[in-house]
Order: sequence, then C-alpha cells, then structure tokens
Amino acid sequence: MSEQPASAPVIVPAPATSPLPSAVAAALKRDGAGLVAAVVQQFDTHEVLMLGWMDDEALHRTMTSGRVTFYSRSRQEYWRKGDTSGHVQWVKSVALDCDGDALLIRVDQVGAACHTGTRTCFEGRDLEVQTGEAV
Amino acid sequence: MSEQPASAPVIVPAPATSPLPSAVAAALKRDGAGLVAAVVQQFDTHEVLMLGWMDDEALHRTMTSGRVTFYSRSRQEYWRKGDTSGHVQWVKSVALDCDGDALLIRVDQVGAACHTGTRTCFEGRDLEVQTGEAV
Repeated sequence: MSEQPASAPVIVPAPATSPLPSAVAAALKRDGAGLVAAVVQQFDTHEVLMLGWMDDEALHRTMTSGRVTFYSRSRQEYWRKGDTSGHVQWVKSVALDCDGDALLIRVDQVGAACHTGTRTCFEGRDLEVQTGEAV
Repeated sequence: MSEQPASAPVIVPAPATSPLPSAVAAALKRDGAGLVAAVVQQFDTHEVLMLGWMDDEALHRTMTSGRVTFYSRSRQEYWRKGDTSGHVQWVKSVALDCDGDALLIRVDQVGAACHTGTRTCFEGRDLEVQTGEAV
C-alpha cells in the first residue's frame, strides 16, 4: 500500500431525536454508519473481552438498563449481550474517551465473552510480531 | 432514535498490494475507510490506554517495527505514537479478534497515552450510568 490516505470517514451529527443526555450526544463522534467503538473490559481482572459497536440508542440502553446492548454491523440490529447465550454483561461503568469516538465499558462478564466459546475474543489469536523495548 | 437500523458499513476488500502476510490481510474486516479499530492496553497493569485506527500499512509497521503506528482519521495520515510527544508505545503483542474487525495491541507505554496528559484517554471521563449485577 502506498502512503495514499484512505478516504476520510463521514462524521455523522447527533440524530435529532437522540435518547442520550444532550452533553453526551454532543460529545459523540460517530462514524459514517452513526456508530462509535465500544471496548468491553472485565472490571476486576481488567481483561479486554471484546469490541462492539454502539449507536445513540444502544449506548442509551447500556447506560440505563445495567446490561450491555450493541448495534450489530453485520446483522443491522440491536443485540443485548447474553439474551441468547446467557453470557450477560453487567455494566459497572462507562467512559467516553477524549475525542468522543470510543467507549470503555467495564462489566462483569458471565461466562465466555466470545461466540466461539473463548473467554475473550482475542484469546489465542496473537499475530507474529517484532516486539520493541526502550533502549 | 427509532429502531431503524443505520446504513450497513461498506466492508472493504484487502488492497491488492497489502504489505501484510496474506492470511492476516484476508482475515481483516475493514470499515468503509479501510480501517480496523485498535485497542491499546498496557501489558503489565492491563489498563486500557486508548483506541486508535489502523489500515494495512499501519498494522504492518506496528507488527514489524516494535513501535505502534496508527492511521489518523482526522488528519488522514500515518502517526507513529511518540514521535512528537516522546510518549512511545513499545509493542509487546498484537492479537486480531474472532471476526477480524478489532486488534488488541499490548504495549509498554512511555508516559501519558492521552494527548491531554492523562495516563489513559478514558481516565476521569466516566458517564453517569445505572449499574447492573446478577440477581
């Protein structure tokens, strides 16, 4: 690949009827599909469990119900984690990052976070890399 | 916001000249701008430091140089963390998640990860939420 930059993402304004508190809706920096990335971390062990996507409605449900709801990009529907698998994510805290395009959701994860049955979606999926260290 | 789904993301195929190993290039599920989300975690304390974005070239540089390189969506350019701030991220490991749209980069972070000066981009940025727990 050359140094040619990819096309800029379309940044979507807050929907007119966002269910979120206005300060939160104003701070979100949504991608072209109206979504922000949501990193899910086990609150006590600090394992990074998975990454999902949220629009305003999914974040609203997550902030107000005690359970994590995502928006599925592939299925184009809301998805409350654990409704079919039983692998519920109980919300402990939600933080929005400095530039508004990422959420950190701390949860208590019941069972496996990954649909493949592993505890996290990253477990056993390391790529071969050159590591680095301060010299 | 209604239940009306947002438009589906355009999933971009591997660029013809991806510098990545072919198995990695084939596994990546890129968004409409050719990017995947990269969660950056401190390798020993397990703090989630920040979330950035990578295209094939940024991931290639991250996998082969020992330092983390992102693709900046706002500036539309490559950005090797620490080149201007000194806050280098030394690569410890890289994992690609089960569905290929998220990376977990474990690093040794020098100084603050956030451009605002906080250790992480989420620190002190909690939203007010209803927590949940198993009943």
